Amino acid sequence: MVVVMTPDATDEDVQRVVDKVTAVGGEAFVSKGLTRTIIGLVGDIDSFHGLNLRTLPGVGDVQRISDPFKLVSRQHHPERSTVWVGAPGQQVPIGPDTFTFIAGPCAVESAQQTLEAVEMARAAGAVMMRGGAYKPRTSPYAFQGLGVKGLEILASVREATGMPVVTEVVDARDVAVVAEHADMLQIGTRNMANFGLLQAVGQAGKPVLLKRGMTATIEEWLMAAEYIAQRGNLDVVLCERGIRTFEPATRNTLDISAVPIVQSKSHLPVIVDPSHAAGVKDLVVPLSRAAIAVGADGVIVDVHPHPEEALCDGPQALLGADLRSLAQAVRQLPPTVGRVDAGTARR
Amino acid sequence: MVVVMTPDATDEDVQRVVDKVTAVGGEAFVSKGLTRTIIGLVGDIDSFHGLNLRTLPGVGDVQRISDPFKLVSRQHHPERSTVWVGAPGQQVPIGPDTFTFIAGPCAVESAQQTLEAVEMARAAGAVMMRGGAYKPRTSPYAFQGLGVKGLEILASVREATGMPVVTEVVDARDVAVVAEHADMLQIGTRNMANFGLLQAVGQAGKPVLLKRGMTATIEEWLMAAEYIAQRGNLDVVLCERGIRTFEPATRNTLDISAVPIVQSKSHLPVIVDPSHAAGVKDLVVPLSRAAIAVGADGVIVDVHPHPEEALCDGPQALLGADLRSLAQAVRQLPPTVGRVDAGTARR
Amino acid sequence: MVVVMTPDATDEDVQRVVDKVTAVGGEAFVSKGLTRTIIGLVGDIDSFHGLNLRTLPGVGDVQRISDPFKLVSRQHHPERSTVWVGAPGQQVPIGPDTFTFIAGPCAVESAQQTLEAVEMARAAGAVMMRGGAYKPRTSPYAFQGLGVKGLEILASVREATGMPVVTEVVDARDVAVVAEHADMLQIGTRNMANFGLLQAVGQAGKPVLLKRGMTATIEEWLMAAEYIAQRGNLDVVLCERGIRTFEPATRNTLDISAVPIVQSKSHLPVIVDPSHAAGVKDLVVPLSRAAIAVGADGVIVDVHPHPEEALCDGPQALLGADLRSLAQAVRQLPPTVGRVDAGTARR
Amino acid sequence: MVVVMTPDATDEDVQRVVDKVTAVGGEAFVSKGLTRTIIGLVGDIDSFHGLNLRTLPGVGDVQRISDPFKLVSRQHHPERSTVWVGAPGQQVPIGPDTFTFIAGPCAVESAQQTLEAVEMARAAGAVMMRGGAYKPRTSPYAFQGLGVKGLEILASVREATGMPVVTEVVDARDVAVVAEHADMLQIGTRNMANFGLLQAVGQAGKPVLLKRGMTATIEEWLMAAEYIAQRGNLDVVLCERGIRTFEPATRNTLDISAVPIVQSKSHLPVIVDPSHAAGVKDLVVPLSRAAIAVGADGVIVDVHPHPEEALCDGPQALLGADLRSLAQAVRQLPPTVGRVDAGTARR
Repeated sequence: MVVVMTPDATDEDVQRVVDKVTAVGGEAFVSKGLTRTIIGLVGDIDSFHGLNLRTLPGVGDVQRISDPFKLVSRQHHPERSTVWVGAPGQQVPIGPDTFTFIAGPCAVESAQQTLEAVEMARAAGAVMMRGGAYKPRTSPYAFQGLGVKGLEILASVREATGMPVVTEVVDARDVAVVAEHADMLQIGTRNMANFGLLQAVGQAGKPVLLKRGMTATIEEWLMAAEYIAQRGNLDVVLCERGIRTFEPATRNTLDISAVPIVQSKSHLPVIVDPSHAAGVKDLVVPLSRAAIAVGADGVIVDVHPHPEEALCDGPQALLGADLRSLAQAVRQLPPTVGRVDAGTARR
Repeated sequence: MVVVMTPDATDEDVQRVVDKVTAVGGEAFVSKGLTRTIIGLVGDIDSFHGLNLRTLPGVGDVQRISDPFKLVSRQHHPERSTVWVGAPGQQVPIGPDTFTFIAGPCAVESAQQTLEAVEMARAAGAVMMRGGAYKPRTSPYAFQGLGVKGLEILASVREATGMPVVTEVVDARDVAVVAEHADMLQIGTRNMANFGLLQAVGQAGKPVLLKRGMTATIEEWLMAAEYIAQRGNLDVVLCERGIRTFEPATRNTLDISAVPIVQSKSHLPVIVDPSHAAGVKDLVVPLSRAAIAVGADGVIVDVHPHPEEALCDGPQALLGADLRSLAQAVRQLPPTVGRVDAGTARR
Repeated sequence: MVVVMTPDATDEDVQRVVDKVTAVGGEAFVSKGLTRTIIGLVGDIDSFHGLNLRTLPGVGDVQRISDPFKLVSRQHHPERSTVWVGAPGQQVPIGPDTFTFIAGPCAVESAQQTLEAVEMARAAGAVMMRGGAYKPRTSPYAFQGLGVKGLEILASVREATGMPVVTEVVDARDVAVVAEHADMLQIGTRNMANFGLLQAVGQAGKPVLLKRGMTATIEEWLMAAEYIAQRGNLDVVLCERGIRTFEPATRNTLDISAVPIVQSKSHLPVIVDPSHAAGVKDLVVPLSRAAIAVGADGVIVDVHPHPEEALCDGPQALLGADLRSLAQAVRQLPPTVGRVDAGTARR
Repeated sequence: MVVVMTPDATDEDVQRVVDKVTAVGGEAFVSKGLTRTIIGLVGDIDSFHGLNLRTLPGVGDVQRISDPFKLVSRQHHPERSTVWVGAPGQQVPIGPDTFTFIAGPCAVESAQQTLEAVEMARAAGAVMMRGGAYKPRTSPYAFQGLGVKGLEILASVREATGMPVVTEVVDARDVAVVAEHADMLQIGTRNMANFGLLQAVGQAGKPVLLKRGMTATIEEWLMAAEYIAQRGNLDVVLCERGIRTFEPATRNTLDISAVPIVQSKSHLPVIVDPSHAAGVKDLVVPLSRAAIAVGADGVIVDVHPHPEEALCDGPQALLGADLRSLAQAVRQLPPTVGRVDAGTARR
């Protein structure tokens, strides 16, 4: 940490900081400038936080130098991790050597719709299925998902197709039942900072797909992963899904740069959800291509056999020619960035 | 709702929309322009949502005209509401005729610190106390609050001072115990879209202080209030606390315009939290003055007897001269906007 | 400045930085941490910029500590400045002791409309007039202003009313003619980073009203003021007019916190334009009240005798009851923050 | 356009709107809803703007339905355009069938540095060169470019290499001299809304590279292109270069979705500048890959033979292994999206 003193700080003010830091076992290096003095702190950063240096007289600012996350940081874990999802024999990898294509309906509406959507997804090359049983909706009057019945449908479709299931959990009280039915627990964008829920999935014994909060910085997102990891679960896959900006042409702005940045700061895999970022199906294929080319470890997209009947996010669901386009991109592009189809690496 | 057709939409495309709308009992008025046709829909808007009009061929866009919230809307409830907080005899109003000054420590750290902070607050004119027993923190390594012990301290300080207590609840599983100890339940900025928690506090039988999500539009914030109201609880007070923008000079950008906008769209009271928006104490007094002058129904600020020992947000806690300045503003400004001190209106 | 080395930086990497810094006459203080080394630089910051330290091996980041502006900084000029606008005998102050109410039409459309608007403004207490002769418009098909004829109208209305004129200049080639007719040159939000224009007005011999870029940080805004000051003109008044955020309920989000922040960092006066931030007239009065209470040195608002005939921004122009409300606020609130009406301080 | 009446609008209010619209030759279709009436307007939209409908009693909102740009719209020009840059025999296309790789130094510092950088660029596959002679800088104390001398260096390097030159113009007074030396005039992000400059380059007789304002919506960006087109110049290439958001990990957030959106709304070509969006060289190669895969018509990147000596933006300049990586991507990826190297299509 670096403590920046105000221009009018006195020698006593500087000494007070030095004394506080050394009292907890740290070292303080003073650089006296013409207009400002700065103090470099060396030692255990957690002990410095308790000092409340920012409230001391003469202190203008305190700047953190190191990343605040530890378990998910790449600093002490230089090799990028692979997370395996599914039952033995059907396990699909998400990691640096493969490309994992995940697809399915936004919401589980019925057994038939789910099965049809997943069959479409599989035909296009998907190796994992998605589908929501619990839907957090902006309006209390909108469809909120089938709940446990939706989970049962997902489990039966997995039975029929052999594809591992990722599904969202929105309430800590539901974590056990979701973990019982699904292979991977998704934390949605609205719950990225729901710390009780993060801790609950950290103890559920299943891999977690952690979507970025639509307004979260990359650092906050990695801190949310740290919450899960701290409860003993390092099988966390991050998912970029767009951030909130001033641009109204898309529902959210896909932050494609987040992929290489996350990969440089953390060892965790990172995938992209182009469907929810764009909000319209016409952008899903080009954004998926961009995601593969930028080096994402996978994509997760919405498909629906009858978008005009969808109970949730119909306008962004792929089918027909668009889905064939995506299938082609998923076959063609990953090898150009040195990756193989995750389906060929099942174990 | 208005359906905007694409420039190349055919007559059949237009007719298909009209047929769908009339099939569910609505009316469709077609305006055929030179390059585009638009269709105005009249009838029950909820029935239109199920039509998925946006996915039909030839449909370019579907624009909502009415506000999506109902119970909290001012449209059918033109008189602005007053919410009463506290036990009979100590009840404090928050509403259009009064100005309610709420203050206390960011976090409850000990019985003594809390009592000292609340006494400071009372001396400055506060009529309600705040204090956090459950603290959602970005880092899993930061102080997370005293939990139930913190609630007990808050209850004992209320005993000593007669001031109603507002405190945050971060997990649906804690709603019952928090409602037992506190007079008002606070939903923090990170949980504004935690719909399970909103529904839980909607059934808890206590007034709710709903902070704006730091990335929520005003409409989404009012929809979150609708979630609470829909469970039968209309005693909701909204709290503007800053939104996330590109400007780094403040922790968040206080959206002062939100106050009159909320007051024109909703009958619910709205207050301002300048401490969390600013993140530094020097801005708290000027922003509080701005909040009173813009017409807020109250402010909620952090005070601490010893900011340099605070376990949470010390740099933004007021004391000494700043607190006296605030006390003066709270006495002087509300009458200029036609309001009396809420303390004089207790019942 | 502080140089933050990467975790894998070698001793040679550190020494290279130290050598470069000392070679240009600076001092480098090394703080060796457990995972990272930081180097505090002391000396002439401009000479460090040429070193390109960020491109050296082992350098992770270079953080600036001091503000990059000098002439407009409050650091070496602790007393806040007053800028005087207008001809001797009619000069109006904008500064820390007064409150300056500026009003007039958004655009000059005709001599009569301008005179009527300015008379309305004067009756409401305004002491300076605004009015645009050159209008930068998003659409090339929208009204672009009357140009020189508009300037002549403004000059004639000043003749009639004795009120100094502020008007916008949008092109460096027009600076001379605008300076000839107006008392103060306005740089609009879209031109805040038009450095050639800033330099031109810096040499024009008239005070400048510098609006904040709708997407500019406070620091960038002060750097734009520095561009003007560097050409010898320190008579610069800053104007907060809203920033671009994700919130669609207002045209821009008025960043009310910018007022006290600017006042702490710079000695220049700062006023608020609530009309362009809000975009609708209903918000202009409450936001003006907030601006006065937060401590702004003035406000600038749009008025129009017949908003329904306005060629530009009619929906935000005040008249009638709203204007009377504003007049009342301008009389009543400045004394509560220790200010007198600028009109009483003319010289 | 659609006029949305307020819930309390009277029949007279509705009739007043209808009368105003029909008086200028338009048609008004009234849809009377339960709580609100909406009126669809058909006819010449420009004539409606003058009506100031938003200021009429009972009018709640006026929503535009059509895009406000015309000449650059794809609506009346469905085929995507190709812009040719350079002297006959050296002309390079930018358009839908090719991929155009543009590279060079951020700033022209000397003849040798420019030539070395351009030779590096050419060896990596670039077919056009970039280089700044006029540099708009946030600080008045930073290097502002060599001006005319820089233009002469660019012209001599073009002589030596046969590569067309694109360079920025920042002031309308410099347009003639820049057009004399360069093959394409660049409008930088800070000047996207400098309408006088846009009009000047619209008349200069050379193709224009129009960077997106870092805070401009896509619609505003296309309106800026319309300003140029309206002066008779349709040879405009758009350049996405990142927008300002809350995320601090990149200088700006590259809005990759803007590429397919622009291509659907406008017939103009669109390229991507990953260097200025990212601000650091490590992201340039992955973002360039993403740009090619998403379907951009080209990329423009910074290279420098000695980044540690660069006078501007050294940290983002490519060289060595990174540049070889980019060269490989530029060879390998365009064919996967059906494009050929623009160099093979010279004329």
